[in-house]
Formats: sequence, structure tokens, C-alpha cells
Amino acid sequence: MQGFGIHASMWTMNWDRDGAEQAIAGATKRNLDFIEIPLGDAPSVDAGHTRELLGRNRLRAVCSLVLPEEAWASRRPDAAIQHLEIAIDKAAEMGAEALTGVTYGGTNERTGSPPTQAEYDNITRALAAAARRAKSRGIQLGVEAVNRYESHLVNSAEQAVAMVERIGMDNMFVHLDTFHMNIEEKGAANGILVARDHLKYMHLSESDRGTPGAGNVPWDSIFVALSAIGFRGALTLESFVSMPPEMAGDISTWRPVARDEEEVMGIGLSFLRGKAAQYGLHDLGA
Amino acid sequence: MQGFGIHASMWTMNWDRDGAEQAIAGATKRNLDFIEIPLGDAPSVDAGHTRELLGRNRLRAVCSLVLPEEAWASRRPDAAIQHLEIAIDKAAEMGAEALTGVTYGGTNERTGSPPTQAEYDNITRALAAAARRAKSRGIQLGVEAVNRYESHLVNSAEQAVAMVERIGMDNMFVHLDTFHMNIEEKGAANGILVARDHLKYMHLSESDRGTPGAGNVPWDSIFVALSAIGFRGALTLESFVSMPPEMAGDISTWRPVARDEEEVMGIGLSFLRGKAAQYGLHDLGA
Amino acid sequence: MQGFGIHASMWTMNWDRDGAEQAIAGATKRNLDFIEIPLGDAPSVDAGHTRELLGRNRLRAVCSLVLPEEAWASRRPDAAIQHLEIAIDKAAEMGAEALTGVTYGGTNERTGSPPTQAEYDNITRALAAAARRAKSRGIQLGVEAVNRYESHLVNSAEQAVAMVERIGMDNMFVHLDTFHMNIEEKGAANGILVARDHLKYMHLSESDRGTPGAGNVPWDSIFVALSAIGFRGALTLESFVSMPPEMAGDISTWRPVARDEEEVMGIGLSFLRGKAAQYGLHDLGA
Amino acid sequence: MQGFGIHASMWTMNWDRDGAEQAIAGATKRNLDFIEIPLGDAPSVDAGHTRELLGRNRLRAVCSLVLPEEAWASRRPDAAIQHLEIAIDKAAEMGAEALTGVTYGGTNERTGSPPTQAEYDNITRALAAAARRAKSRGIQLGVEAVNRYESHLVNSAEQAVAMVERIGMDNMFVHLDTFHMNIEEKGAANGILVARDHLKYMHLSESDRGTPGAGNVPWDSIFVALSAIGFRGALTLESFVSMPPEMAGDISTWRPVARDEEEVMGIGLSFLRGKAAQYGLHDLGA
Repeated sequence: MQGFGIHASMWTMNWDRDGAEQAIAGATKRNLDFIEIPLGDAPSVDAGHTRELLGRNRLRAVCSLVLPEEAWASRRPDAAIQHLEIAIDKAAEMGAEALTGVTYGGTNERTGSPPTQAEYDNITRALAAAARRAKSRGIQLGVEAVNRYESHLVNSAEQAVAMVERIGMDNMFVHLDTFHMNIEEKGAANGILVARDHLKYMHLSESDRGTPGAGNVPWDSIFVALSAIGFRGALTLESFVSMPPEMAGDISTWRPVARDEEEVMGIGLSFLRGKAAQYGLHDLGA
Repeated sequence: MQGFGIHASMWTMNWDRDGAEQAIAGATKRNLDFIEIPLGDAPSVDAGHTRELLGRNRLRAVCSLVLPEEAWASRRPDAAIQHLEIAIDKAAEMGAEALTGVTYGGTNERTGSPPTQAEYDNITRALAAAARRAKSRGIQLGVEAVNRYESHLVNSAEQAVAMVERIGMDNMFVHLDTFHMNIEEKGAANGILVARDHLKYMHLSESDRGTPGAGNVPWDSIFVALSAIGFRGALTLESFVSMPPEMAGDISTWRPVARDEEEVMGIGLSFLRGKAAQYGLHDLGA
Repeated sequence: MQGFGIHASMWTMNWDRDGAEQAIAGATKRNLDFIEIPLGDAPSVDAGHTRELLGRNRLRAVCSLVLPEEAWASRRPDAAIQHLEIAIDKAAEMGAEALTGVTYGGTNERTGSPPTQAEYDNITRALAAAARRAKSRGIQLGVEAVNRYESHLVNSAEQAVAMVERIGMDNMFVHLDTFHMNIEEKGAANGILVARDHLKYMHLSESDRGTPGAGNVPWDSIFVALSAIGFRGALTLESFVSMPPEMAGDISTWRPVARDEEEVMGIGLSFLRGKAAQYGLHDLGA
Repeated sequence: MQGFGIHASMWTMNWDRDGAEQAIAGATKRNLDFIEIPLGDAPSVDAGHTRELLGRNRLRAVCSLVLPEEAWASRRPDAAIQHLEIAIDKAAEMGAEALTGVTYGGTNERTGSPPTQAEYDNITRALAAAARRAKSRGIQLGVEAVNRYESHLVNSAEQAVAMVERIGMDNMFVHLDTFHMNIEEKGAANGILVARDHLKYMHLSESDRGTPGAGNVPWDSIFVALSAIGFRGALTLESFVSMPPEMAGDISTWRPVARDEEEVMGIGLSFLRGKAAQYGLHDLGA
């Protein structure tokens, strides 16, 4: 996991053969190093087709997911394990390097109370099992901190680190997202410092999920921190400019966050590459 | 509505006689100009007691609320009108100057779809009726834009302005909150420009609802914009440092957002007063 | 004076026929609205040639200068008047709209003491005379605030405003520069608020005189302030990327401030246009 | 060298017995860890008196200077060596830990041309000799990068590092100043990354030399970078609020940069301590 990538949602949320072709073509055209593939329905994915496309385009891949309510690890750890194992196996078949995202639960998961030890115990058990399966498949497993509205369980870098350290598997990593950090961290870049020993994956997403550089994320602080810790992981642009309306509810986005793909990719991606270069993140190919 | 104030949640969410005494004493001690009183249960409030306390301490007041689900204006405009009228009458009895907040709905209100014209029509009808009642009582009525997770209805300054202009009553105003603007606006201070003709009330709240100055809100931009538009309204510090655990679910805050009242008031309030002075908001008494 | 322009130093500091052709071609190619022409040696300029070139390319122009030591207005007001009148006449002949810059002195002018009333009196007399001549020629006359190292006389927006108001001619205006404001103003954008009634010309220059967007100027604050005051003047990109080495001493720039013209114009100008659009400076053609 | 300190200029620029008593009392009252002592006239300092005062107040010390024109190392390396050796010996006698500042030249030193190899050769020879003397006295020797207007020789962190590495003595270190970095670095905090292997001393100075927190220095980036590199050196507040008028020329400061000592120390120092704590610079006693 290294370099600049993009979430496939820029082109599709359906990773069927058409979606895969569209997204991989788009990422290749933008000269990206990898693509993040959403595993909303892992069993349906034609892994051989994706593997072949990736190889032909010399594009690397990371898979991501959120758990469906019936497999939220805080309540149904066994269902979570089963769900994660299927996704891990599929990611391995596709030739992806990692499975990440909200691997412990949903994005509308809130009990109305602070997290309990029992919830964390369930999550720990589920992620530990998933990490073992991932290890056997050569896959890394990430834990993404998301904001307080999406989950009551892992909101801060500190909480993500605690979870990864509690499990103690060397193929687990912390995944942070600037959109969430802009809400949760006391100084967005603080999250990068807190997670430095485990941080391998970053979502670069503007404060409104729109065009990077045209919002409130303190990008100079983010990039100076990434450079300072010697970050050598993956930077993924994430914007929900092209999400289909029927998915608005999953991401609580009710109006367009940017004009179009060209604005996000032409302007936003250039902005992010420029900042990476400004702060000497050279090894990322910026 | 003018000067620096504070949301009573710093001391209490129960505006009973004890809560009122505690909060008014706290605000007076900090040399504030007014207090924001949460009308979670308007009928239960002893208005005469509050009016007497405010007068004795020379403190002004603004009331605020969110609507309970059974009175969400988007779906149940008549129930909303009834609920708002009771709150307006109570605010007037207390001697408050305005009723504001999410006067159109809830803070966990989302349908999973973008807002519809029918929802907006219902809200318009409810707010128009409430504004007329408010006018007859000498009360101003505010509309607060909140972030996408709290409501799908009014997230941006532009949407709040559209609502106020659609109704067209001169006692209505726009209420913005830096915590929400930090998520929704393309450049947080842009919201202030968009709403300038109707903006009378600002929640000054840090990006994590904690101590102002120790987060990601771009305060220099916020204050330069307020100064530039000649803002002469009310600035209210809002932090959820002292919210009781049983209310965590209402505000999606699962861990402490600051150390204690002293940090928020001693450090955060001083920071905000300093920024107001730096940018020449002198008429606010900064 | 309106829209986006650029200082001719991007291409030349010699406004002879070759320099004029090169700079006007460059500005036209970048789709700019006007060019700032340095009048280092006004008498030598072929005004008819420039006027013809500007007309053919539909480019507008503003002239600028700093006074040579023998004509510093603080000490030699009569020499300053003579120097300024020649420049004003030349600007008018070229069809330029204004003469601006350090119209009161030099950029290495410091006495070692704070400014005296006698110095200000001399400057006032010189600028008043120049403003009258400018008015008779249909030319506006600007006063640029520069940082403490370049002059001890007019460092802040407040001082530039005081000078313009003291003279009281309606064809005088304040000229600010983000590079200098980043050093002198308590909150760079504060200068824009202070000067709002007189501000017609802005140098947009990064904190190191390099590529806008890759330094420390708080651009979001700058643009929100410009938008808030309803700025309708001229925005001029200024970078010293292409200054000849023999002029290093005039601008105290000892190492390259950017890679090349393409970096400053391709990346930096796009960045500035993007920020203007983000904050709704639409009337500038952003 | 560790913790928070302050430049003695807050109270005096004359390090005679009165000045020493006043400054050491002031720093002690503010609970600082050390004081920076200006060695404008080293031979005149009563070293025993200072040593006794420091010991009694448990305050540590760092000395600083700029070279007088007759001892600028770029031109007169032998005079520079002699000047530096006297200062080093005096610093050692006082019990100071380091000598730093513009140890290679003046603050109004510019030739009008970029630095030459001959100038750097002279400086290298002078600093190497001074570093040897310092080592024999148990003193560390710093090199401060200052902005382009104060010197044409060492403006950026990169240049300061190059100088220190060229000499190769292990008692030499890089000294950066946020006021200068705000002008010279492409992203002020970048200087901290570039200098990380040699950075032991930081001047924390606002963009106008006034009250920290009320200017343009991007403090969040500065502190996240310091924390990220594991900075364990000394942080010195520097403001020129109390400089006597006759020294205005040395520092090109022509108008008051802050209201008074209380503003700089009460508000500014609290701001800096708060930011250090926010970004986890705990070992500095923040």
C-alpha cells in the first residue's frame, strides 16, 4: 500500500464487471497507483476479472467495506467474522493488498450511549479472527475511525490505535480519514501523530466530502504531519461527488458536494499532489 | 440580541428553578451579556422566576429548542405549530428576545433521501405561523442550519436563507453554528457571507464541540467575515463539556470534549473574546 | 481597474518595445484582464507602441513604480512631484488607468527611526500635487503599504488609509499586497477591512514571493474578506520568479522563489482564480 | 536547552546588573525555564552576578548576539572569531548553555547580490573556530536563519542545516524563528522538517513580532511538526513589545507591535503553552 489512489465511488458503487472496467479505466487515466474497491457484496464479485484488469493496467488495489447491520461486530461477532472472512478471501483472489474501512460495524451505528466494554470485547474477538484469516491470505486488515454520527465506537485515532494494539496482530493497521479527523481530532493532524506507529492508510477527503482544497481541512498541517512521521503508506482521494442518489442515506449527503468528476479530479487531485510535493512526500510519487 | 452569550448547557439542561439559578449565576460570573435557555419542556418552566433572575442580574436571554419527533414540521406541521407557539409564549413571558435552534425539526431527523418539496412546504407553513405568533409577542424567530447527520433539511447557510426568505417575515433570522459550518460550508466563513442579510445569531462552537481555539474551526476567517459584514448580533459559546451522559445520544457525543468548564470558559471564552477584539468587533463588547 | 492581472516582471523589468511585446503576449495568452507595467524609466517608454499593443490585445494596464533615492518624497518632495508627474503623463499616454506602487518613496528606505511628522508632511505635499496632475489626466493614484524592511513610512493598511484620507482627493486609492500584509497586519485580512473604503488594488503575492498557494498567506481569510467588502477592484498576481539577478538587491530575493513561470502561472494563478470563485468574487471574471 | 523561555528584551536590552535583575525576576515570575540573554557588549557583563542570580532563581540561560559590522564573518572572519570567542567565554562564565543568534553576521547585512562561495568560506572558517572554542568551554553554538531583509546569507532552514553540516562539529545546532520562517519557508513548518536532525532552539515569534496568537504564523502546523519530530529543545517567546525606540533601526520596527508586556506574556505565552499541550509537547513542561 503506497502512493496515490482513489475510491472507486468516483465512478461506481457496483463492483460488477462494468463497474470494474469503468473505475479501473478512470484511475489508470488519472495516473493513479491504486484503486479502493468497495466490497458491498463480496460474493457477487468476479475476482478473476478484476485481477486480470488490474494486472493489465498495472494498478494495485485495496478493498473496503462497512458491515451490514446483521453483521455488526459489537453485537454479532460471529456474523461479523463470517462476513469479513468472505471479503478477505475475495480481496485475496482479486490480488488486493488489504481490506479496510469500518471493518467493525456500520456507518449508521449508534446505540445512544457511549461504547461499552462488552461491545469492544465483541469487536476485538471478531477483528482478531479476521486478522488471522487475513494473515493466512497475505492480506492486511485496517480499522477506520469515523465521526461520532456514523458510529459511537471508534471515532478518534486514539481509539483506533487502542483497538489495533489490543488485538496485536502485525497485519493490522490504522486507517484515518481527514473528513472525520476534521470533526473529531483536537487539531486534525494530531490524529496522525497519535496513530503514527500503525498508520498505513489515509482517506484524503475534504470537510464536506467535495473537492480537496475548497473546504476546511487544514491541509498544510495534515501534510506536514504525514511528512514528519515518514509516512510511506497509501493516500486515497475520497469524494462523494458521483454517488447515486439511492445511496445518499448511507453517507448522509443530500446535495451535490462538487460540480463534477473533473472538478474533484482535475482540481482536487492536483491540489493534493501539489501539497504532497510541497512537504516532501516524494516517495509517494507525488 | 447582541454581545457574547453562552448556552446554558455549560451548567444544566434542565431549566427548572435550580438549573436557572445555577446557569444565570454562572453566566453572570463570566461577565456575559446573555444566556441561551434550552426549552426542552417549555410548559414546565417557571417563567416569572427566570424573568426575575434575569432582571436582577441584568442578563438578557434567548430561548432555543429542537422539535420532538411527534412535532417535526416536515411531517406534522400542525403539531409543530402548536409546539412552537407554546415555546414562543413562554419565551415572551420570561422576557427572552428570541426563539431559535432547529425550529423546524429534530437533530436525528433523516429520511435517507434528499429533502422534498412537500417537506419544505410543511416547514414553511409551520414556521410562517410560528413567526406570526412570535411577532405578536415581540419575539424573533431563528432557523439554525445543522450538519447533514443531524438533519437532511437545512444544512447550509444558503438553505437557511432560502427558508427565511420564502416566509418573508421580518422577525425571522438565520442562525449559524461554526461546528456545523466547519462540515457543510465550502470555506466555513462563506456561510456568513451567504447569510449576511439575515444573520443575527452565531453559535461559536469548536470542531469537536470542545474548547474554542483547540480544534479545526478556521477562527480567523470566521471573525474577519463577521467583522466585514458589520455583524451586530449575538455570539454564543456552545460546548458540550458538561452534558449529562443520558443526553449523549441527542448530540452524538460519546467521550468528553474538553477537560472541564474552566478549560472551556477560562481558555476558550478568552480566546473568542480576543479574536473578536483582534478583528474589531468592538460593538459586541469584546 | 478590475479583474485579474499580473505584474510584467513575470516576463521583463525593461519596458522597452521587446519587453512590452513579450509581457503583453504572455498576459494575453494567460487570459488576463490587465497588466501592471513597471515604470522604472518612464521617459524611455514608447507610449504609442504600448497603447497600440494593449488595444490590439484588448488588455488594460496599470503602471507602477518606486521612487529613486533622489526623489524620495519624505526628503525631496519637489523632486518626487517632478518624477511622479512624468510617470503620470506617460501612463496616460499609454492608456493606463492608474499609477500605483511605492509612490511616496523607495523600497530600501529607512532612517533608523520611526516616521516623523515632517516626513509625512513632505509626502502629503508631493502626493497631493501628483494626485491633481493625475486627475487632470484621468489617472488614479495609488499608495502601496510595504513591510517594515522596505520602508519605515507606510507599513500598514491603517497608515495607507491615513495618507489617502489626509490628502482627500477622490482619484487616490489604497494598494495592498498580501506578502506585506502577511508580515504587518494582525491577521492579514484585517488590512482589507481597515482599507475597505479606499481599497482598489491588491497584489496577490505568496509569503515568499513564490507560487501562490504554496506558502503561508492565509488565502481563505484574504478572499472571504475581499468578497465580504464587495471588492470590485483589481487583483494582480505578483511573483519574483523571473527577476534578473542584477535586480536581486532591489527586492532582497537571493534565491529562486519558484521553479519557473509555469509553476507560478499554471499552478499559482489557477489556485487564485479557484479561491476567488470559491468565495463568490464572480464580478472579477474569476 | 529545554522547556519554555523568553528573550530578555521583554524587559531590557542592557544586560548590566539592573537589567539582569529585572529580566531574571520577570522570567522567574512567569514560571519560565530559561532566559535568553543578549550579549550586545559581552566584555561589560558581570558574569558572576548573572551566574549567582540564575542559580538563586533556578533559571537556566542561553546567550545570543548578532555580529557588529566590523566583525561580520563573511568579510572579516578573524574579527568574527575574536568577537565570538569573547562571547563564548562570557557565556560559559555566566553558566549559560549555548550561544546562538546571527552568529555569522549582522541583521542589516546585505550586499545586493546572492551569497558567494567566498562569503560562505569565510563564515565556515569563523564558525568552525568558534565551535571549537565553545566545545572547550562546554557551550553549544547555534546558527539562526533570518529573513532576506536582515541578511542575504542564511535565510532558510536548508541553508542553516548546510552550514552546520559543512562544519560538522557536534556542539553546533540550528536555530529557527517562526517570524522568519513565515516569510522564507514554503509552508512555515517545512523548516522544522528540513532541520529536524539539528534543530535545538526555536524562537516563537508572531508574524509582526507582537503577541503570539494574534497574527499570521500557522501555529497549528508549527506545533504539530515540533511534536512529530520529537522536538526536545528550547522554545523561546520573542516579541519586541518593549524594545527602546533607539533600537528600532536594528529590528526595523517602527510602531508598537503589541499593547504591553501583559498582553504578550499573559495572552501570548498562555496561547503558546496551550498549543504545546494540545500537540503533546509534554516533555517541555507545557
